[in-house]
Amino acid sequence: MTGLVHRRRFVVEWGACDPAGIVFNGRFFEFFDVSAWEMFESALGVPRSDLFAAYDIMGIPLVDARARFMLPVKFGDAAEIASEVAEFRRSSFDITHRLSVGGELAVEGRETRVWATRDKDDVSRIKSTPIPAAVIERFRAA
Amino acid sequence: MTGLVHRRRFVVEWGACDPAGIVFNGRFFEFFDVSAWEMFESALGVPRSDLFAAYDIMGIPLVDARARFMLPVKFGDAAEIASEVAEFRRSSFDITHRLSVGGELAVEGRETRVWATRDKDDVSRIKSTPIPAAVIERFRAA
Amino acid sequence: MTGLVHRRRFVVEWGACDPAGIVFNGRFFEFFDVSAWEMFESALGVPRSDLFAAYDIMGIPLVDARARFMLPVKFGDAAEIASEVAEFRRSSFDITHRLSVGGELAVEGRETRVWATRDKDDVSRIKSTPIPAAVIERFRAA
Amino acid sequence: MTGLVHRRRFVVEWGACDPAGIVFNGRFFEFFDVSAWEMFESALGVPRSDLFAAYDIMGIPLVDARARFMLPVKFGDAAEIASEVAEFRRSSFDITHRLSVGGELAVEGRETRVWATRDKDDVSRIKSTPIPAAVIERFRAA
Repeated sequence: MTGLVHRRRFVVEWGACDPAGIVFNGRFFEFFDVSAWEMFESALGVPRSDLFAAYDIMGIPLVDARARFMLPVKFGDAAEIASEVAEFRRSSFDITHRLSVGGELAVEGRETRVWATRDKDDVSRIKSTPIPAAVIERFRAA
Repeated sequence: MTGLVHRRRFVVEWGACDPAGIVFNGRFFEFFDVSAWEMFESALGVPRSDLFAAYDIMGIPLVDARARFMLPVKFGDAAEIASEVAEFRRSSFDITHRLSVGGELAVEGRETRVWATRDKDDVSRIKSTPIPAAVIERFRAA
Repeated sequence: MTGLVHRRRFVVEWGACDPAGIVFNGRFFEFFDVSAWEMFESALGVPRSDLFAAYDIMGIPLVDARARFMLPVKFGDAAEIASEVAEFRRSSFDITHRLSVGGELAVEGRETRVWATRDKDDVSRIKSTPIPAAVIERFRAA
Repeated sequence: MTGLVHRRRFVVEWGACDPAGIVFNGRFFEFFDVSAWEMFESALGVPRSDLFAAYDIMGIPLVDARARFMLPVKFGDAAEIASEVAEFRRSSFDITHRLSVGGELAVEGRETRVWATRDKDDVSRIKSTPIPAAVIERFRAA
């Protein structure tokens, strides 16, 4: 992958940590979600809340999420997440996230998401739809 | 696997759902975590907050977590999670979780956890330690 | 107040607790929210996800929330929340929540919510609307 | 109050919002908590995870929290929180938080916290202790 890598830095907050003093596992998926939205926002040049209208989608819901926890991440740690689209397929794509603290890789995440619309015959169902070529193009490195 | 299967039922709450009206992905890992603690509590016959002292561990932290999202789970849905230990290894184990709504499998989860103590030489590090045979024995079906 | 009191019991989960080993303050408001939905569901006899359609509302959003923390609530604690509508006004109402552990009052909460519709002139704005008398009637004790 | 005002800006994330598309009420208390930690960190010049050791405290737990919700805060909104200590008392203090979006005040919060140590006779209890004068001094405006 030689494309766009999105990086963000943040300090691990108290409310994200559990009684062992480390980030509760579910919170990492929230961290990755924030990175995913930011990455799309900056790649496409559209504010994240306008992505739905701009591309006529209901969202980019997950069909698979995974994380490997290698080192504990603690309250107050300065974390960096580096995210990139590992692969675009017809209507789904994989994002990898590497969270590091002090330069050491602590958590690796991988999300598979779909480019999704509401199913017109059953609005409670979500239907994947082809990702526009113009979207994919934006993720290639400049 | 012919061992203990832990089942629990709950109604999906408002605060667990996102603007698409479905459970936010990170919340499923929280649902699975609750099931894991309940399963250990009932298998071992020890209140969950006493597990640390009873077994001289600092917890059962995750080293890997995964979920596959097959159907959207919505606010107010009556969900059931069926959980079991898929495999015990020397100092780690895998738990599978199957979340269904109305009998339909909606989300499959898999956690790998370690039986962990604090590293005596570096208390900020977590160290896996062999799972007692008596613990494993408790997960075999009666 | 001599009306309906809604009670629910639950065990405090790991993911709701912070590094001090006690429930993170924001989580209590989530606990109260669950109680509020359950109370309306049982008082009105309508599944919580159908309340919007049944009463043509967009929700019962909060305009004020408060909690007093008297005793720490810890991982694994068996908590009980007793909730009731303290006052119904024209288009808003107050709910009080008393969370106790082992019979000791630990946290007192108070929510002010409005019976709300979308503002037809500006769908991003929320507008309060009179609470139907039939709704209020349902909260009187049988 | 003419003292230190702590300001931070952030974009409202997807996972903090509920099916009405607005921030779930409990999340505002998490936002305020982050601001409180940041304010102490910058006022005292001590990384937030070192505050416990530096001042021999177990934390700054809440005894009261309150929020008034005036305008809905939505996914993608650029929010600013301005926080200050409204009053220092012997062993407790009040923090006010004003969250605005686009210059409009949307949520007002007020926390009462205590300067706390573990009770030596009962480690599960939290005990307030006098706030050092040197701490209070740091919150006066330069």
